[in-house]
Amino acid sequence: MADHAHQLDALFEVIAARKGTDAEASYTARLLSRGVETCAQKLGEEAVETVIAATRRDAPAVISESADLIYHWLVLLASLDIDPLEVYAELARREGMSGLEEKASRKKT
Amino acid sequence: MADHAHQLDALFEVIAARKGTDAEASYTARLLSRGVETCAQKLGEEAVETVIAATRRDAPAVISESADLIYHWLVLLASLDIDPLEVYAELARREGMSGLEEKASRKKT
Amino acid sequence: MADHAHQLDALFEVIAARKGTDAEASYTARLLSRGVETCAQKLGEEAVETVIAATRRDAPAVISESADLIYHWLVLLASLDIDPLEVYAELARREGMSGLEEKASRKKT
Amino acid sequence: MADHAHQLDALFEVIAARKGTDAEASYTARLLSRGVETCAQKLGEEAVETVIAATRRDAPAVISESADLIYHWLVLLASLDIDPLEVYAELARREGMSGLEEKASRKKT
Repeated sequence: MADHAHQLDALFEVIAARKGTDAEASYTARLLSRGVETCAQKLGEEAVETVIAATRRDAPAVISESADLIYHWLVLLASLDIDPLEVYAELARREGMSGLEEKASRKKT
Repeated sequence: MADHAHQLDALFEVIAARKGTDAEASYTARLLSRGVETCAQKLGEEAVETVIAATRRDAPAVISESADLIYHWLVLLASLDIDPLEVYAELARREGMSGLEEKASRKKT
Repeated sequence: MADHAHQLDALFEVIAARKGTDAEASYTARLLSRGVETCAQKLGEEAVETVIAATRRDAPAVISESADLIYHWLVLLASLDIDPLEVYAELARREGMSGLEEKASRKKT
Repeated sequence: MADHAHQLDALFEVIAARKGTDAEASYTARLLSRGVETCAQKLGEEAVETVIAATRRDAPAVISESADLIYHWLVLLASLDIDPLEVYAELARREGMSGLEEKASRKKT
């Protein structure tokens, strides 16, 4: 169970392992070799595509673009040597949901 | 183990359960009540903030903005009645990493 | 003599004239032939690149990415048959600056 | 004639003049006082809203969000002490349209 979760962890491990490897050998290695800004730009682009797919109510496109978004988010973290566990820990810290709500409210006001 | 993964799943369950509940009672319910476009807009905004934090090499900000990004991504999925499992399945389908690379290459050319 | 302004007007005229012409003949015609979503996506991408250039305090890149942004914004308007004059009129309507401020304040609260 | 152009120039002059003035006195001054990243973030947010309005084929919203986008783009330039004339000059340099096309083609390949 929770195979999908292992999915994200396994994906991040594969991505992180590509760092510093031959940029010609894989799209991930090429992206990482081009640096943080390029990875950030890709994240932004995939977010825009997800927004468009959502606005069109095109569920298959939202799923596909979301996969691109999550993949490029993990690449961006790898480019910065940040472990996604730190993000999950931050989400956990905000939780009991009330915590999350509190953070969100604070931010908006 | 894999608590962080359960973290994402638990978070999505909490978010999905807010759908249709009193918009005054929580930030999540309020966001969902405002519809898909508002949720998509929030996703886009958090992506922009993540991009800025990454460009500044501000790791704590990247972690914090990433938490916002993932949270709002889950809210957007909930607004469209899409289960994140479908996204993880899409990522799995692309994998053996070679599959992912192939998809990415196809997309770029 | 506002030559730079005529610049924007002349640019929009050239762009609008490309609509419906041979997609193979120019980048603008190709973009317009691919539809509103593709044009919107390009606008979003150029905005992300402008944000990154600004965060890096890279003035030449901000100028170059801004040129891309304004060009793709005009293409998006052309794809929707909206004249940029309508946007300038909206800006004029908000002005005496106080009007603009008022609009912005209303939006934020 | 070209009043709309004078419109953009007048708007930029008003915006640039707000720099360093009392942040309590106007939305523009407040935005500028918060620094380049905040201005860049606003540009990104307005781009996302323009993308959503375009995807919805909501022409009045595209006009309104475009006005926000152009306004915040001018604020971002002011925050970086960049004159929009430099962007218009860059667009002119790329022109004879062929030049623009050439740049765009180079970029995509």
